[in-house]
Amino acid sequence: MIHIYTGDGKGKTTASFGIAIRMLGHGKKVCLIQFMKKNYEYGEILFFSKIENIDIYQFGSDKLIEPNNPTQADIEEAHGALQQVFLALQDEKYDIIIVDEINVAVAWGLIDLEDQKRIFAIKTKAEVIMTGRYAHPEVIAMADLVTEMKEIKHYFQKNIQARKGIEY
Amino acid sequence: MIHIYTGDGKGKTTASFGIAIRMLGHGKKVCLIQFMKKNYEYGEILFFSKIENIDIYQFGSDKLIEPNNPTQADIEEAHGALQQVFLALQDEKYDIIIVDEINVAVAWGLIDLEDQKRIFAIKTKAEVIMTGRYAHPEVIAMADLVTEMKEIKHYFQKNIQARKGIEY
Repeated sequence: MIHIYTGDGKGKTTASFGIAIRMLGHGKKVCLIQFMKKNYEYGEILFFSKIENIDIYQFGSDKLIEPNNPTQADIEEAHGALQQVFLALQDEKYDIIIVDEINVAVAWGLIDLEDQKRIFAIKTKAEVIMTGRYAHPEVIAMADLVTEMKEIKHYFQKNIQARKGIEY
Repeated sequence: MIHIYTGDGKGKTTASFGIAIRMLGHGKKVCLIQFMKKNYEYGEILFFSKIENIDIYQFGSDKLIEPNNPTQADIEEAHGALQQVFLALQDEKYDIIIVDEINVAVAWGLIDLEDQKRIFAIKTKAEVIMTGRYAHPEVIAMADLVTEMKEIKHYFQKNIQARKGIEY
């Protein structure tokens, strides 16, 4: 099954981590592949790095990406992430593969929509979760489960900055 | 800050677990209080029970609750959960308190809306996360962050049953 968590609201990436926790609780194996998230002190990475049965691969740089105008380095990192996704899909050990922020990577031109659609063609026993805003309508049409996280209200609107433990 | 994750889509409770993970990664302390979820082999409980810095309290029975017609036992369990929430709010050790399914507990008449609103009146350094469908408009108006998880597509529509690791 392929899940998509998209929309402008908080909770997309964290929902995927919650499913990882459930899977790990049942003794299953998790692969987490993150686009555009390298070199940052994310709480989830600090936590998961001490946990068994989860493999984590991060790609990207610590520089901000300019939407629709990525650098060659950004594009290469994103293709590294994509390659890791296909390796994970072909590795029979995983029960769940989380592909974090892939929807944004497509929307911003780091990888092609066709690359994302190829994921659907691979037969796997693993549950696949794709996160990020801007999921393409074609991908939404192909997925088994789609939740739109809709922002009703956010304290960022009040100019509160991202906080440790909550946003990262 | 008080967050609400509501709506009919998948990802409300799991998003709260993802934030718990981030908090735990940063060495912070978590309290998870669940309404209407006792005696069930949830993956998250199997997982978190082996983790430090998280306290878990479950209330409810293993019987289904009839919406708007709860039994006295259901009501008592829900009030036990509520009492635990107030104890946690007054305990300065927690950085985050997750109050899982409280929105449903109010909607189904297990506790009063006024009980839920009392949570907002308590001064605490802890982040408070309330989950569940049917969050009341008054509660939405009072919260700092609200995400509606909107179901765009769900495999339950294809008569697929809840699966271990994914739904529990």
